[in-house]
Amino acid sequence: MARYLNVILLPSLTSADQLAGRTVVVIDVLRATTTITHALAAGAREVLPVVSLAEAREEADHCRSEGSEVVLGGEREGLKIADFDLGNSPSEYTRESVGGKRVIFTTTNGTRTIRLCDQAGLVLLGAFVNFSALCESLRGMPQIDLLCAGTGNEITREDVLLAGAVVDEIGRREEGDWVFNDQANIAADAWNAAVGDLAGGDPLERALRRSRGGRNMIELGQDRDIEIAATIDQFDLVPQWDPSTGSITPFQAV
Amino acid sequence: MARYLNVILLPSLTSADQLAGRTVVVIDVLRATTTITHALAAGAREVLPVVSLAEAREEADHCRSEGSEVVLGGEREGLKIADFDLGNSPSEYTRESVGGKRVIFTTTNGTRTIRLCDQAGLVLLGAFVNFSALCESLRGMPQIDLLCAGTGNEITREDVLLAGAVVDEIGRREEGDWVFNDQANIAADAWNAAVGDLAGGDPLERALRRSRGGRNMIELGQDRDIEIAATIDQFDLVPQWDPSTGSITPFQAV
Repeated sequence: MARYLNVILLPSLTSADQLAGRTVVVIDVLRATTTITHALAAGAREVLPVVSLAEAREEADHCRSEGSEVVLGGEREGLKIADFDLGNSPSEYTRESVGGKRVIFTTTNGTRTIRLCDQAGLVLLGAFVNFSALCESLRGMPQIDLLCAGTGNEITREDVLLAGAVVDEIGRREEGDWVFNDQANIAADAWNAAVGDLAGGDPLERALRRSRGGRNMIELGQDRDIEIAATIDQFDLVPQWDPSTGSITPFQAV
Repeated sequence: MARYLNVILLPSLTSADQLAGRTVVVIDVLRATTTITHALAAGAREVLPVVSLAEAREEADHCRSEGSEVVLGGEREGLKIADFDLGNSPSEYTRESVGGKRVIFTTTNGTRTIRLCDQAGLVLLGAFVNFSALCESLRGMPQIDLLCAGTGNEITREDVLLAGAVVDEIGRREEGDWVFNDQANIAADAWNAAVGDLAGGDPLERALRRSRGGRNMIELGQDRDIEIAATIDQFDLVPQWDPSTGSITPFQAV
C-alpha cells in the first residue's frame, strides 16, 4: 500500500483545512521545537503554545488562579519579552527553571505554525535533538506531513535540512511503497548535499550557522543555541500538541 | 560590493510589489519557458503571454485587425485548447507554424508567473534549452531573482533544479561577494544532489521525469517533451518580456 511523505516548506503553502485529520510534524529548529523539547526533557508539566502576548498573560492568570506554577517564555524578534521569565533559548529551560511547572510559550513563527494544525489528527514536534525518537514515532504511519515553520514568508534552510533528514531516514530505511511530493525530494537532496551524515555534528552545525535562522542567532549573539540545536539525539522524547487541550506533552505511542 | 542572488520557489511567496524594479528570471521548464524559447528560435515575431482564454481571443482579433499573422497557442490542464492552433509542446513551435508570426500564448502557471512581473525592471525567461545564454545575460548584474512557476500552489522540482543550476553556475564561476537567500542554497543543493553536471543529459532527463511536471507529462503521453526540455543549450537566445508592450522578444544585452 502506498505511503505518503510530504514536506511543506512554509506554513503559507498549506492551510488548517488542508492539514485536517493528518499526521503533521512541526519543525522550527532555531528554536521553538528544539526549545520545547528541552523544556519537556527538563520536566516541565506541559507547554502551552500561544500566539499573542495578551493570550500568554491571560493564560498565565488562568493557570495561577488554578494554583499552578507558571513560567512565561518566548521571544519577539529573537529577544526575551520584557516581563517574561524566560526567552527562547533552549539553555534557559532547565530542571530548576521549568521542572514541574506549566510553560506558557510564544514565538514569532513556531507557535503560529503549531496552532495552524488545530484540525490535524496528530501533531508532533521535530528537531535534531530528538531526531531518532521522532523517526521512531512515525514508524508505520501511512501519511506524514513535515511542516517547516520558516521565518515570516521566507523558507529557512535549517528547517528544510531536518525535513530532508527525516525523508532520507524514513524513505530509505523503512519499508513501504513511498510517494514523496517534490518538496520532499528537494529537502532530501538539500540534506544530502549539505550534511548527509547523522553521525557528524560538525557539518550540521556549519550548515545551521549559514542558514537564515543561524545568521539571525549569530547577529543576536546567541551562537551557542546553534550548537545546542545541532546536538543530534540528545533526547529520547517527542513533544505532541493536543489541539483539544492546547497542551504539549511527551508523545506516548499507542 | 555585495551581489544578491535569490530564488523564489513559488509565485505565491512573492508579489508584484516585491518584484518591482528587480531583475527577474521566470522559470517554467515544463513547459512554458522552454516552449517560448523554441517559438522565438523558430522565428516567431513575438510571443504575447496572456492569462485568460478570453484575453487570448481578444488579442488575436486585435492583431488580425492590424493585418498580422497570428497563432494561438497554449494549454489548460496540459492539453491543447479546442479552437487554438497549437498546444504547449515545444515541438509544435516550428519555422512552418510560427515563423514571422505573432504567437498569443496562455498556460496555467507560466504565463501567470510572467505577468506577476509587470513592475519588474527586467524580465528574462529561463530554461535548460537556453541555460548558458541565460547565465551570460545575467553577467555582472547586482541583483537577480530566480522565480519558479511551480504548479498551482505546489513547488515543482524541475523548476528548482534549473534555479539551482543557475545559482551553482553564477555563484561558483562569477566574481562577486554573493549573498544567497536560503532558497537559493536549497536549490543549489538540490541541483548538485540530483544532477550536478551540465555535461550529462541523462541524469537531468531522469530527474525531470521524476519531477511533478515530468510525471504530469508522462500521464498525458507527452514524454517526448521531457527529453526536449532536458536538451541543454539547444539555443543561444534568452526571451525577454517587456511589461510596457506585453511582448516577449529575444533579449539584446545593452
